[in-house]
Amino acid sequence: MKIGIVGLGLIGGSLAIDLHALGHTVLASSRRASTCQQAIAQGIVTDASPDLSLLTAAEVVFLCTPLGAIEATFNQLAPHLSPDTIVTDVGSVKQPIVAAIAPRWVNFVGGHPMAGTAESGLDAAQPQLFAGNPYVLTPIATTPPQALSTVSEVVRSLQSQLYQCPPADHDRAVAWISHLPVMLSASLLTACIAEPDQSVLELAKKLASSGFRDTSRVGGGNPELGMMMAQSNQLELLRCLELYRQSLEQTIHSIQQQNWPALEAQLNQTQHARPEFIKRPPA
Amino acid sequence: MKIGIVGLGLIGGSLAIDLHALGHTVLASSRRASTCQQAIAQGIVTDASPDLSLLTAAEVVFLCTPLGAIEATFNQLAPHLSPDTIVTDVGSVKQPIVAAIAPRWVNFVGGHPMAGTAESGLDAAQPQLFAGNPYVLTPIATTPPQALSTVSEVVRSLQSQLYQCPPADHDRAVAWISHLPVMLSASLLTACIAEPDQSVLELAKKLASSGFRDTSRVGGGNPELGMMMAQSNQLELLRCLELYRQSLEQTIHSIQQQNWPALEAQLNQTQHARPEFIKRPPA
Repeated sequence: MKIGIVGLGLIGGSLAIDLHALGHTVLASSRRASTCQQAIAQGIVTDASPDLSLLTAAEVVFLCTPLGAIEATFNQLAPHLSPDTIVTDVGSVKQPIVAAIAPRWVNFVGGHPMAGTAESGLDAAQPQLFAGNPYVLTPIATTPPQALSTVSEVVRSLQSQLYQCPPADHDRAVAWISHLPVMLSASLLTACIAEPDQSVLELAKKLASSGFRDTSRVGGGNPELGMMMAQSNQLELLRCLELYRQSLEQTIHSIQQQNWPALEAQLNQTQHARPEFIKRPPA
Repeated sequence: MKIGIVGLGLIGGSLAIDLHALGHTVLASSRRASTCQQAIAQGIVTDASPDLSLLTAAEVVFLCTPLGAIEATFNQLAPHLSPDTIVTDVGSVKQPIVAAIAPRWVNFVGGHPMAGTAESGLDAAQPQLFAGNPYVLTPIATTPPQALSTVSEVVRSLQSQLYQCPPADHDRAVAWISHLPVMLSASLLTACIAEPDQSVLELAKKLASSGFRDTSRVGGGNPELGMMMAQSNQLELLRCLELYRQSLEQTIHSIQQQNWPALEAQLNQTQHARPEFIKRPPA
């Protein structure tokens, strides 16, 4: 197959590596000529150029620019494509992307590979980044079955765990498992450093160990990532935050009222529930 | 030195291993005769018996029973000790223990070794469990300097990071870094599983990865541990929960109002603050 990739960062670069290794023709575009040269030199693309017209021959195009640039990238790319070309993206929030592109490109299938590392850029790209990890496709009622099945086939060839759902379900699910944790974890750090007794704060810093390290990890991460989540998935995130606030109130209430049976029932329930979120289906 | 240990679980057993290896005479007591026999057979104690009178000869005694049993253990032990004997404990909350024992035993020094594993019992005991980890002592105005310096010396010989503070400071600091994280992490799980849309909940379970795994870890842990924290450190925990609730409200408010500069300032601050809680002084 002739596959186009726009954006040669961690995701685009890793897609190029796997798809080229699978024998596809990979035509890639990056705004920077030096990145295109690097991809050619590494042998992970068939050809690469900052000029989007290179992708005219592609049968399927992956939009791999940062979330905020996907729509603009599509706008620049569309004039170079034939209407038969299937377009998909890798943005981590789906409703705004699908709402912007699907009405203008019938052969569009929203996508989100849930894989990554702390690094970014083409230097961080690696083989098998998607293997064993979830990859969500978000077709809508107007998505042609042929477009969906073609993208599904490519995704499966990456050895990803393929899931399909409406864009809203995706955004709500990632709000729960990715965006909400960042906000409550950040709020933990914000509350701690507001401790008015400096000697208690200094002691807390010294005594913090694995429990605090884990609970604060995503809240102390890259601010750009947190901003992207809040700005692009604001409504779903606020919905989760509201349900979380209610759950927190209930926990506080049990402790305030010394309702130990209620707290114990809650902690038994959470201990029982967590493994459901942790297990992974076999690859 | 002649050192007594009451309670041969993970902490008591690991103390026995290190202190016996350091050449001390270790006299241990466990309610179960079989545990005493096991400790003798493993060569980690000089002698062990369910009979507390074995500890009459001890110069320093570590109370290593579970938090809820420490006061009762002291009550049973006290008639067997001479008033010169220095008594310390390993309970994870200090105000109630110190308030209960210090008025009745002048040579008492509250203590909390902040080390552990997911396992418990003598089988989980290991050498060097305390090495490089914090060990907090909580003397009060009436604590004899000689008692404090003797316990400090033993603690330092375990290669622990020794800290000293009033019992209230300890309880407040552990509320921040250990007890609060459990409650907000449990509240996250409680909120998730209350998601009314079953298909979203099922998708969330499938998509959850490292961020959710880390943030939910302590909230999905042993319910007994969470109950112990809430019951024994209720007031300090509620104080932290109240400050956390305010911090969460502020985060929600920024997102609701699309006050992106405020959210960005917060996330920059938490990214900057977290390393202060994560670094450890060199051993």
